[in-house]
Amino acid sequence: MPRRTQTIAPALPASGALRPLGLDEVRITGGFWADRVDTNRDATLPHILHWLEREGWLPNFDLAAAGTLPEGRRGREFADSEIYKFLEAAAWSLGTSPSAALEATFGSVVARVAAAQEADGYLNTYFGRPGQPPRWSELGFGHELYCLGHLFQAAVARARTRPDETDGLLSVATRAADLVCAVFGDGGNDGVCGHAEVETALAELARVTGDDRYARQAELFVERRGHGRLTPNEFGAAYFQDDLPVRATTTLHGHAVRANYLAAGAVDVAVETGDAALLDSLVTQWRTAVARRTYITGGQGAHHQDEAFGLDWELPPDRAYSETCAGIGSIQFSWRLLLATGEPQYADLIERTLFNVVATSPSAEGTAFYYSNTLHQREEGRPADPDVPSARASASLRAPWFEVSCCPPNVARTLASLPAYLATVSESGLQLHQYAASTIRTALPSGEAIDLAVEADYPASGVIRVVVGRDAAQEWTLSLRIPSWGAGATVSVRSGGSVESSSPGPGVAAVTRRFLAGDVVELTLPVAPRVTHPDPRIDAVRGCVAIERGPEVLCLESVDLPAGLAGRSVDDVRLASAAVTPDLTVALRVHDDDDDDGWPYGPERPRASTAGTARLVPYHSWANRGPSTMRIWLPVAE
Amino acid sequence: MPRRTQTIAPALPASGALRPLGLDEVRITGGFWADRVDTNRDATLPHILHWLEREGWLPNFDLAAAGTLPEGRRGREFADSEIYKFLEAAAWSLGTSPSAALEATFGSVVARVAAAQEADGYLNTYFGRPGQPPRWSELGFGHELYCLGHLFQAAVARARTRPDETDGLLSVATRAADLVCAVFGDGGNDGVCGHAEVETALAELARVTGDDRYARQAELFVERRGHGRLTPNEFGAAYFQDDLPVRATTTLHGHAVRANYLAAGAVDVAVETGDAALLDSLVTQWRTAVARRTYITGGQGAHHQDEAFGLDWELPPDRAYSETCAGIGSIQFSWRLLLATGEPQYADLIERTLFNVVATSPSAEGTAFYYSNTLHQREEGRPADPDVPSARASASLRAPWFEVSCCPPNVARTLASLPAYLATVSESGLQLHQYAASTIRTALPSGEAIDLAVEADYPASGVIRVVVGRDAAQEWTLSLRIPSWGAGATVSVRSGGSVESSSPGPGVAAVTRRFLAGDVVELTLPVAPRVTHPDPRIDAVRGCVAIERGPEVLCLESVDLPAGLAGRSVDDVRLASAAVTPDLTVALRVHDDDDDDGWPYGPERPRASTAGTARLVPYHSWANRGPSTMRIWLPVAE
Repeated sequence: MPRRTQTIAPALPASGALRPLGLDEVRITGGFWADRVDTNRDATLPHILHWLEREGWLPNFDLAAAGTLPEGRRGREFADSEIYKFLEAAAWSLGTSPSAALEATFGSVVARVAAAQEADGYLNTYFGRPGQPPRWSELGFGHELYCLGHLFQAAVARARTRPDETDGLLSVATRAADLVCAVFGDGGNDGVCGHAEVETALAELARVTGDDRYARQAELFVERRGHGRLTPNEFGAAYFQDDLPVRATTTLHGHAVRANYLAAGAVDVAVETGDAALLDSLVTQWRTAVARRTYITGGQGAHHQDEAFGLDWELPPDRAYSETCAGIGSIQFSWRLLLATGEPQYADLIERTLFNVVATSPSAEGTAFYYSNTLHQREEGRPADPDVPSARASASLRAPWFEVSCCPPNVARTLASLPAYLATVSESGLQLHQYAASTIRTALPSGEAIDLAVEADYPASGVIRVVVGRDAAQEWTLSLRIPSWGAGATVSVRSGGSVESSSPGPGVAAVTRRFLAGDVVELTLPVAPRVTHPDPRIDAVRGCVAIERGPEVLCLESVDLPAGLAGRSVDDVRLASAAVTPDLTVALRVHDDDDDDGWPYGPERPRASTAGTARLVPYHSWANRGPSTMRIWLPVAE
Repeated sequence: MPRRTQTIAPALPASGALRPLGLDEVRITGGFWADRVDTNRDATLPHILHWLEREGWLPNFDLAAAGTLPEGRRGREFADSEIYKFLEAAAWSLGTSPSAALEATFGSVVARVAAAQEADGYLNTYFGRPGQPPRWSELGFGHELYCLGHLFQAAVARARTRPDETDGLLSVATRAADLVCAVFGDGGNDGVCGHAEVETALAELARVTGDDRYARQAELFVERRGHGRLTPNEFGAAYFQDDLPVRATTTLHGHAVRANYLAAGAVDVAVETGDAALLDSLVTQWRTAVARRTYITGGQGAHHQDEAFGLDWELPPDRAYSETCAGIGSIQFSWRLLLATGEPQYADLIERTLFNVVATSPSAEGTAFYYSNTLHQREEGRPADPDVPSARASASLRAPWFEVSCCPPNVARTLASLPAYLATVSESGLQLHQYAASTIRTALPSGEAIDLAVEADYPASGVIRVVVGRDAAQEWTLSLRIPSWGAGATVSVRSGGSVESSSPGPGVAAVTRRFLAGDVVELTLPVAPRVTHPDPRIDAVRGCVAIERGPEVLCLESVDLPAGLAGRSVDDVRLASAAVTPDLTVALRVHDDDDDDGWPYGPERPRASTAGTARLVPYHSWANRGPSTMRIWLPVAE
C-alpha cells in the first residue's frame, strides 16, 4: 500500500468541529448503499465512459492534442468537465476497489487529457485556438474555470487515493491552477466564472498541495462575486449569484447548482481564513433555504426555466426541477457546514437528499438517470431513446445520457466517495452521521484507536447495532445522529451483562464510556411509516400529506392502483384519511371518470368516487417498473 | 365617407352561424371599455411608435431600403412584426376615430416599410441579404412567415377601414403573399413557419382580395403542420405544434400563442373549405383546453420555460406565465368558433379573457404592460427601468417595453378593434355577446334595419338596457348572452305600457318580437360578488377559493391589508370563511410572524394568527397603486 499522506476524502478543512474520515477508514459492507456503490462501480462508470467516447467529448482532447480543433469538436462548452468528473469518480472508486482494468482506463484518459494541455498550463477544448473564442472571453457562460475546477477535484481525488501516482494528473492540475492564479490573482483579471465550482476545488487543491496561492485564489473568487461583474443574461445577475456579495446574501437563490457550489466554496474559504462573519452568513443561507425553498425530498431549485430556486414557499411538486446536481451541491454545502459546526441538521439534510435525490436519479441498473426529479408525474413518461442523448428539459423518465450530461458523472463521483460521508471524529470521540452496514477503523486525535462494526439493514430496519471491536484505553464518546423525524428513538448500551437504555430526542445521542471489545450500542429509530404535513405556506401542496418511512419519502405510482382502478391517473386519487398501515398501504377514494369538460371554476359540486387501497413505494424506486403516473403529495379527501 | 366594401372587422368568414358587425356598425359610447379604447388610441399608440423608433426596429426598414443591412440592424428576428401590429392597430383606430396626425404617421410608416420591399415581393429585414441567413432557411425560429402574416393583417385592416386607400399597403401585402404562394404553394417548399400566424392572415387576405390562392395557401400550411418537418428545439416538436396534425390533436398544447394562432387559422380553413371534421377537432381542442388548461382569468400557457400549455390540471398561480399574447390568441380562436357555431361558451371565454388578461396587461396610463400575468405575486415587484427594455422573464411589474415586445402592440390592435367583438347578426336577428354602453346600427340579412342603444355601466352594474330605436318591419330575435355565472339573471321587455319578465338560465336569452321604437329589453345580471371553487384536480389551488364579481376576477393586494397587518405578505393570509360582503370585503386570519425557520415538513402544528379584514380589488387593476404582493386564490382557514 502506498504511504498514506492525507485522509482519503473529498473535503479536508484545516479546522472545524469535526474531522472527516477517509475511504480507507470507513467501509460500507452491505445493504442499501453497498448495492448502489457496487452498481456505480460496475455499471455506471463503464456506461459514462462509453458515452464520453461516443459523443466525442473525450475525443475532443485528442483533437486538441493533434492541433485540429475547432473542427470536429463536439458537445457544449462545458463538455470537458464530464471527463474530469469521470476521472474523479474513477479515482475514488479505485481508492476503495482496486481494479487493474479501471486503473489502465484511468491512466489512458489522463494521458489524453494531459496531451491537450498547452505549454503555459491552459487546458480547455472550447477556447483559445484560432477559430475559437479567446481564453477567458466568456466568463459568464464559458465555464472555463468551472471545467478547471472539476479537473482540480479529479486530481485531488487521485492524489489522496494514490499519493504515489505517476500518471501526472496532479501536475496537469497544478500547472493549470498556477495559470489561473497568474491570470486571476491579486491585481489581475478581476472576473469570476458564471458557474461557481473552482472555488471549492482550489481550496481542496491547496489542501492537497499545501500551496496557499490556491487558497488565496479561492478567496478572491468568493469575494469578487456579487458585484455585477458578469454580463447578466435574461434571468438577471441573480442567476449566477452575481447580484449580491456572498456575505450579504440571506438565502440561496438563482441557479441552484451554482448557488450550492458557491456556498460550499465559501464555507471552505470561511474556514480557511477564520472568517466567522462569512460562515454565519452561510449558516443563515442554509437555514432559510432549507426552511422555505427545499422540497420534502431534499431537492432544491423549483424552476425549470432558469434551473433556479423559486421564491420562498414556491415549491410546485408537478413542476419541480430539483436537479440531481443541485442535490449533490446541497450535500457538499451541508457536509462542509457539518464539519465546521458539528450540528446534526446538516447531516439530516444530507441523509434526506441521499435517499431521495441521489438514490432516485440512477435506474436500478445504473445506466439511466433523472436529470430533474419531479415530485408529481401527471402523464406517463416516455422511455428515453437509448441511442440519442435526451434533452434535459423534456426527459420524463430516466435517460442514458443528456445533451447536457452533468448529472450522471456527478452521481458517479458522489457514490464513489460515499463512505466518506458516514462518520467523523473530534477530540472527544466519533460521530456516526449516516447509517449503513459498515466497518470503521480509525484513531481519535488523542491516539485512541477505534474499531467498530455497524450492523444495520437500514432503512428497511431502524435497528442499528454498533459493535465495539477493541478495548479503549480511555473514555470516549460515540455520537449517534437522531434524525428530526426520530422522536421515540431508543439507545441501549450492552456491556458485559449490563444494559443501559435511554430515549434521546432528535439531535445527537452521546454515549460516553471506556468501551470494551464486544460492547454493543444499539440505536432503534422509529421507521414505521408516518404522515407528514407541509408548512401551510407551501401553497402548492395545501390539503395534502406525504407518507414517509425513516429517511425515505414514499410515493403512489399508478401501476399500484388496484385492479378496479387500473388505468386511472394519480390526479384523481384522494386519501380516504391521513393514515397509512405498517405495510405502507393507504385507503383511497378515486374520483370516477368525469366526462364533464366544462369550465372548471364555479360553485362546489360533489364528485362520485370509488374506494380502493394501494401500497406506496419509496420515491427513489419510482418508474423502475416502467412508465407510470406518480405523486408524493397525496390530497386528503375533505 | 369612402364606399364601404367589406364589414370593418378583423375576421370575415364566408359562412357560419353568425355574421360579424363592423366598427362602423357598433360603437362603444362610454364606460369600462371606452376608457381603455381611448387610452389605447391616445397614449398607447404614440408610446409604441416611440419605442419602435428608439429601439431601431422601424429604422431597420430604412437600413434595408438604403442597402446597408445587416450592419446596424437591431432587435430580434421577429422585430418587423411589431411595426405591422402597430400599423394594424393604427388602421383600426383610424377606422373609428379619424385623426389627421395619425393618418400622416400611418402613411409615413407604410412608405418606410414599402421602401424595404424587394423586387420580387420579399420583405424581411433579418433575412436574405449578404451577411444575413438566406431566405426561408430558418423556418423553425426565423419567424419570416409570421412577420408576413402580421403584414397581411395590417393590410387587411387598412383595406377594410379605408377601401379607398392609396398608401399602397395592400399592394405591398399582396406582392409578398404572391411570393409566399409561389414559394410555398402546391408542389413547392413544403415547410411551415415555427410560429403560426400566417394561416389566419392569409385567410383574411383572401377574403379582402377575393384571391383564392391565399386561402389555398392557408389550407396548405394548416395541413402540413404536425408532420415533424421543423427541426425540434429542446422542447420538442410540440413546442410549435409540429408533433401532431391539427385534425388529430385533442387539446391545445405547446407554445400557447402559437397554439391559439394556429387554431384560429385552422378554424378559418375549416370554415372556408367546409371541413366539418377539422372544425370538430378544433371544437374538441377548445373544450378540453378550457376545461383543464386555462386559468380562472382566461389566461393560458402555464409554463415560463417554453411559454407553453402545461399538462391537464397543471395551473400554478404563482408560476403562471399566462402571456398576454396567448390571451389575445385565445380570443381570436374563440371568436372564430363563436362565428362558426353561434354557441355562447365562446363569448363567455372572450369576456373573461378581455376583463382579466387584456385589461390587466396595460397600466391605467396605457404606457406599461404585463407580458406575463401571474395570479400570485409573492414578492413585491420591482418597477421596470423606464429607459431600458425589460426582459420578459424577469419583469415583475408592468414595463414600458420588452426585449421581446409582442404584447404591447398586440394589446393595441385588440383594443383598437374591440367594438367588432360586441355583437353579430344572423338570419333571425341580432346577438349581443359583450356588454358595454354602445350603439348598434346595422341591418339583418333580410334587410330589416336595426337601431339599438345599449345603456350599461357594466361591470359595475349588472343592469343592461337595450333601447330599440326604430319600429321593426317584421319580427326578429334579440339574443342576449347569459354568462355561465349568470344564474338568477332576469330579462324584462317593456313595450308601451306592458312588461314581460323571464328568468333565463346561463346560455342565451332570446327575445323575439316585432320591436317598436322605445321598446326596452332590460337584462339584469347577478354581479354581487361570489365565491368560486376550483375543480379539485387543480392541485395548485386546493383549499382555496377565488372571489369573482360579474366577469371580473378579484384579488387581494398587500397594500389593502389593514393597518395592524401592514407589511405582511399575502402568503400568510387565510380567509376566515369562504364568504365576501357586497362591498368586496373578506374576513382574514393572518398568520403571525414566525421566526421558526425549521424543516417545513412534519406533524401538524397550530399557528397563531391575527384577525382582520380587507377589501378585494379587480385583478386587472393590480399594482396600479405601486408594488404589492397579490393573490387571486385565497386559502380558506381550516
